[in-house]
Amino acid sequence: MRNLSVSVVLVLLSFKLIAQDPAKILTSIFDEALTDRTAYKNLEYLCKNTKGRIAGSPEAEKAIEFTKQALINAGADTVWLQKVPIPVWKRGSEKCRMISSKNGKHDLSITALGLSVGTSEKGVTSKVIEVHDFDELKALGKNRIEGKIVFYNRPSDNKLINSFAGYAGAVNQRTAGASEASKLGAIAVIVRSATQSLDDFPHTGVTHYETDVNPIPAVAVSTIGAEMLSSWLKADSLLSVSLVSTCKNFPDSFSYNVIGEIRGSLKPNEYITVGGHIDAWDIAEGAHDDGGGCVQAIEMIRIFKKLGIKPKRTVRAVMFMNEEMSGTGGKAYATEAKRKGEIHYAALESDRGVTSPRGFGFDADGQKLEKLQALASWFVPYNIRDFDKGGGGSDISPLKAMGAMQIGFMPDTQRYFSYHHSANDTFEKVNIRELQMGSAAIASLIYLIDLQDL
Amino acid sequence: MRNLSVSVVLVLLSFKLIAQDPAKILTSIFDEALTDRTAYKNLEYLCKNTKGRIAGSPEAEKAIEFTKQALINAGADTVWLQKVPIPVWKRGSEKCRMISSKNGKHDLSITALGLSVGTSEKGVTSKVIEVHDFDELKALGKNRIEGKIVFYNRPSDNKLINSFAGYAGAVNQRTAGASEASKLGAIAVIVRSATQSLDDFPHTGVTHYETDVNPIPAVAVSTIGAEMLSSWLKADSLLSVSLVSTCKNFPDSFSYNVIGEIRGSLKPNEYITVGGHIDAWDIAEGAHDDGGGCVQAIEMIRIFKKLGIKPKRTVRAVMFMNEEMSGTGGKAYATEAKRKGEIHYAALESDRGVTSPRGFGFDADGQKLEKLQALASWFVPYNIRDFDKGGGGSDISPLKAMGAMQIGFMPDTQRYFSYHHSANDTFEKVNIRELQMGSAAIASLIYLIDLQDL
Repeated sequence: MRNLSVSVVLVLLSFKLIAQDPAKILTSIFDEALTDRTAYKNLEYLCKNTKGRIAGSPEAEKAIEFTKQALINAGADTVWLQKVPIPVWKRGSEKCRMISSKNGKHDLSITALGLSVGTSEKGVTSKVIEVHDFDELKALGKNRIEGKIVFYNRPSDNKLINSFAGYAGAVNQRTAGASEASKLGAIAVIVRSATQSLDDFPHTGVTHYETDVNPIPAVAVSTIGAEMLSSWLKADSLLSVSLVSTCKNFPDSFSYNVIGEIRGSLKPNEYITVGGHIDAWDIAEGAHDDGGGCVQAIEMIRIFKKLGIKPKRTVRAVMFMNEEMSGTGGKAYATEAKRKGEIHYAALESDRGVTSPRGFGFDADGQKLEKLQALASWFVPYNIRDFDKGGGGSDISPLKAMGAMQIGFMPDTQRYFSYHHSANDTFEKVNIRELQMGSAAIASLIYLIDLQDL
Repeated sequence: MRNLSVSVVLVLLSFKLIAQDPAKILTSIFDEALTDRTAYKNLEYLCKNTKGRIAGSPEAEKAIEFTKQALINAGADTVWLQKVPIPVWKRGSEKCRMISSKNGKHDLSITALGLSVGTSEKGVTSKVIEVHDFDELKALGKNRIEGKIVFYNRPSDNKLINSFAGYAGAVNQRTAGASEASKLGAIAVIVRSATQSLDDFPHTGVTHYETDVNPIPAVAVSTIGAEMLSSWLKADSLLSVSLVSTCKNFPDSFSYNVIGEIRGSLKPNEYITVGGHIDAWDIAEGAHDDGGGCVQAIEMIRIFKKLGIKPKRTVRAVMFMNEEMSGTGGKAYATEAKRKGEIHYAALESDRGVTSPRGFGFDADGQKLEKLQALASWFVPYNIRDFDKGGGGSDISPLKAMGAMQIGFMPDTQRYFSYHHSANDTFEKVNIRELQMGSAAIASLIYLIDLQDL
């Protein structure tokens, strides 16, 4: 009898909410987000107690346990871990010294690129050749490159308003530069950090070796370091650099995605996924990239539960593991979903930092896009106006083939790449109101798209 | 002959620009802003070399000299100083200690309010009574208030999306709290800092004494300090606070506005004013409030000159003095404009921080507002979308009576009050891209409204 009464009350509560004005629901969501500190404290814990939580690290394991508990605390109906294969890579000691007969010696701020092979403890010492793109590299040819350290120094184009476009225009030096230089006999590469900022933080990120290429050590240098190296090279083209980076790759292992869900009240077999990635580069607290996205997903669960919002579909918050090195968390999640025959209605990723929300990007066309863009009217009171075509994220992209609508959370990104993949990505750079405006925007959008059948 | 040739070239150049597509001009403006570091370096100088530049301080004098030179360097046709009457107020030593028979002793982070009278060196010690608004204060009445320290503890309403509305709802405790408490015989007031943040920075700001009221010392306490004081009071209503704040008011003096202009090519007797305030609270570097607004105004001059943009009207960058204590810089500027019979077409103020630009607010109606809002289409490529009714600023408001269109620059303000009037308002909190997106937005809007006759 007692259970029956509880069920009746819950069903009535559910009808009451469905009958309510969505505008009022959104107000409740924003009110709750802007007056609660749970998500901010969760982020503080991730930043300060699991700093450097790259897949395979003890910090990553700690972050898994913490977010699992946070999802339970948020009130998720079910919380579980999902096995994810991962590469294992560890940073070693690092040093990069310019040695010039004209200018003397100077150390530059560097960081090994993720998955890079290392040097010996002694390192490598060689002349340096500066290039700006692969065409320039190839034009120089094997004769000029062989035995040298290649220095890629193409900056992000700061004229591009979209900071992600600026990043995209520079990042192939990091991802493919080692392979391309190796083909011409280079012994190592130093890559200008892919950031719009001029500062002394080196920014790491993954580098890929083509299978039939001799892998050579690859490091990123801060933009100030890159400017200095370029300037020293102009003054003394014969300068040499002594580079030590004793990072190492280890045999593959496994880790976990962390998943928490609220079971759908009407269509429990249809899924909406909201996620960020729980791993962060080993040199970073991973506040904006992407602890913030994780705590926003958990916060959606907490807010729905706190306000008694009962989604029709099953709504999941997913902390994807290993986005940074090889995206295996997103792949494992989609593989398992396919294996189980799950129907994935929509997926939203928050992995562009947690500054003030500007809106959402939708990978949709025609009438579907129009319907999604029409949702913008609900967000006018919150000054969230950008409902644009184009969006998604790397961890949710494997769900696209299963028909999941792809949605990218779009905060203001002008400052994002000053933090991205660097020691500058700290908790202190996150503002609680901006973080929580984002949490509320995400929870609100999920609430609205679940109301509909798009 | 040489001068004639130069003039011909300049006139041709001017026609060329006028004939150009405004979209291309805007692209040039944004390109220039996003690839130049002058404004950012100017801001760094103001923050690091003229920190605490409250009107009347040596730092303010240094900031006047610096911005005068910066305007000359930017290429302004004329640069001058304009005399401004100012109050003179100086902070003394400060200490606020809770003394409780139950909890022991604890010091709180406080800062004297601007223009507050001080205590003696020994300070005052008294019981404390917590209130949240003037109604509550008045209901307590003279019997309960007399001889006590009044503690105003109404927080900013974090549910309000507009952070300025949250501030506005709390700030009368700071501006009028001392007067109201004094009327009931209080001996001092401690005011919760007007900020949405929960941290240990006390936020100052001006307090006003009504003329026939006994002025009593007034300080702000950090929000963490306010929470602690409130919690200690709940545990021990008899606790006392020992308060020292030896600030002092001195006889009025004078200082200067700094003005630089580009003479109008067609309507030199019509003026467009763009400004921020050069003074900053004595405890702050004044990065967001409002060194940023000043360097953006100077940057507009630099960009116009660099790109050869010749406005029809005379365009001025104005560094207003003494916005913080009594707004005399804005008043002096309008008074002088009126005396000279100047025609003021428009005025824009940047004093809401220098985070990413969201748009502009216009104090206009009807067709004029529609025309201004139509300008938004030019800003679509820069994702600057908010062209809303309502805007202006305290320094340009005296120009309104002269018919000047009032325009407020609107950046994202979610984090603004975590910096405002506190030691947390530092150069490091400003991102160069966000600052310069704002500079470009301002220069672009001024270029466009000068093209028109609104």
